[in-house]
Amino acid sequence: MGNKITSRKEDYSKWYNDIVINADLAENSEVRGCMVIKPYGFSIWELMKKELDQMFKDTGHQNAYFPLFVPKSLFEAEEKNAEGFAKECAIVTHYRLKNDPKKKGKLILDPESKLDEELIVRPTSEAVIWKTYKKWIQSYRDLPILINQWANVVRWEMRTRLFLRTSEFLWQEGHTAHSTKDEAMSECLLINNIYAEFAEKFMAMPVLKGSKSEAERFAGAEETLCIEALMQDGKALQAGTSHFLGQNFAKAFDVKFADKSGKLDFVWATSWGVSTRLMGALIMTHSDDSGLILPPNLAPIQVIIIPMIKSEESKNKIEKLIMN
Amino acid sequence: MGNKITSRKEDYSKWYNDIVINADLAENSEVRGCMVIKPYGFSIWELMKKELDQMFKDTGHQNAYFPLFVPKSLFEAEEKNAEGFAKECAIVTHYRLKNDPKKKGKLILDPESKLDEELIVRPTSEAVIWKTYKKWIQSYRDLPILINQWANVVRWEMRTRLFLRTSEFLWQEGHTAHSTKDEAMSECLLINNIYAEFAEKFMAMPVLKGSKSEAERFAGAEETLCIEALMQDGKALQAGTSHFLGQNFAKAFDVKFADKSGKLDFVWATSWGVSTRLMGALIMTHSDDSGLILPPNLAPIQVIIIPMIKSEESKNKIEKLIMN
Repeated sequence: MGNKITSRKEDYSKWYNDIVINADLAENSEVRGCMVIKPYGFSIWELMKKELDQMFKDTGHQNAYFPLFVPKSLFEAEEKNAEGFAKECAIVTHYRLKNDPKKKGKLILDPESKLDEELIVRPTSEAVIWKTYKKWIQSYRDLPILINQWANVVRWEMRTRLFLRTSEFLWQEGHTAHSTKDEAMSECLLINNIYAEFAEKFMAMPVLKGSKSEAERFAGAEETLCIEALMQDGKALQAGTSHFLGQNFAKAFDVKFADKSGKLDFVWATSWGVSTRLMGALIMTHSDDSGLILPPNLAPIQVIIIPMIKSEESKNKIEKLIMN
Repeated sequence: MGNKITSRKEDYSKWYNDIVINADLAENSEVRGCMVIKPYGFSIWELMKKELDQMFKDTGHQNAYFPLFVPKSLFEAEEKNAEGFAKECAIVTHYRLKNDPKKKGKLILDPESKLDEELIVRPTSEAVIWKTYKKWIQSYRDLPILINQWANVVRWEMRTRLFLRTSEFLWQEGHTAHSTKDEAMSECLLINNIYAEFAEKFMAMPVLKGSKSEAERFAGAEETLCIEALMQDGKALQAGTSHFLGQNFAKAFDVKFADKSGKLDFVWATSWGVSTRLMGALIMTHSDDSGLILPPNLAPIQVIIIPMIKSEESKNKIEKLIMN
């Protein structure tokens, strides 16, 4: 495998791509910007998912599932969030194809199936989820809500790289609702610490925890905490983010709760996510010019070497081999 | 809970809906035809998923992930399949919104972001997957390919019912490629038997195995095996299907393999799936007029009753209670 891989020194970006392809992790698909995650790559992602999912559940979170589509009017509701994602989203406008009268066997859009309101393929789910939380939250007794979902999202990208930046990617997105600012901030911190612990102890990938500058914050957040991993080209890679959303989404969707005294106030929110980009971080942290290297927790195939030692000489040879 | 539920005799369809809502399993969303699967409902689905996933893996299948979108030209390639799904699909035509110059805070489609080729949100993934398999298959050594994916799909439905028929639903779709017709038929049978075993032994839901009439077959299949469960209104519910696709998709995407003698032939295919519709089947199999009843394997909350027996009389009372 080694001889097909460009060295890091020669071309770092090509080295990364060579590893993804040669290790059979993923490949580009026929669909612009979307990847196929191959079985070996997917089995690594499954190991990550399983561990993270347990960490979320151990801290009181539950999984649920919300729709793939966001009606345009909901998408618009939180202005900064809408602005941040408007330029990179896939938009559904019709719901039917019909036979092309001019070409046999070809299909065209049926103009009669045009939707009254366009549907955005979710780039993230705050809008759909907060519209739903409005129905679920009346009083402090309904709080906190600690929900996560494993899902696919789409952000239209012009320049894509396998795992690191693709138009469709897989991720988890947590969306929590709280009665106090402090509780929401604590949740935001808790999750960033879970991400850091997962990265360091499970992926064997050292990260720096920090908070993003205003320009780099999630669109609609008041504070974005993150973990950043250092890649072998000396660049930092954002590997996970945890957002304190203040009351922005509660205000956009008019989500209020009655506290113990009956006073109404807007709900406090967080959202947080890691994605298949972690696969890219994993590859760039551990691998070398000979190919993919995986930490033990994330190796789908576990190898046990049993040396057959016949003499002192063969023992030395074998030990030398293993040490390399 | 019981008093909120319409009786089966009064209105079977309303009874079903009352149970889904009152047991907090799912609800309709703001998005036409799409549901929100609530944490309790989702935890049941997770238990199903885990068991089925293990059954697939135990029989040599691997998970992978293919794109959400199908370019229209791929969608058209297998004519019957295209015809079958053309009338019920969500179609992406643009990739950007821009500010509405007429209304502050509103967004409109950016006409400059119109796609050269429309993208269909997958109603099923044969087209994308067989276009990919073409790259993966050259000789008999590349076969069989035994892949499954857990994914969301969209089939535009005019009349929807929670879990039973929704525009977006969650499912698993297996897609296998084989060098002989017999092997593909065996795979198709194997999976139908796995579905039946899962339904009967894990879900405690009796099913009938059979094969669909030509009119009811999957669009593009030569044979569709299925499991059908009997609901309490006396109707059968299709609970899982396993398709023998012959060489239809291999021919549509020109996927040939060289056999041991070097002779080229088209590859044989199957595809198979179960979906969140199983949740509907589960509810309608076990529940009664008092509410949701779950079989032990699928109860997210397990209850252990420890009777405190103080006298012979209380023992009799308690035993009577338990037996009900």
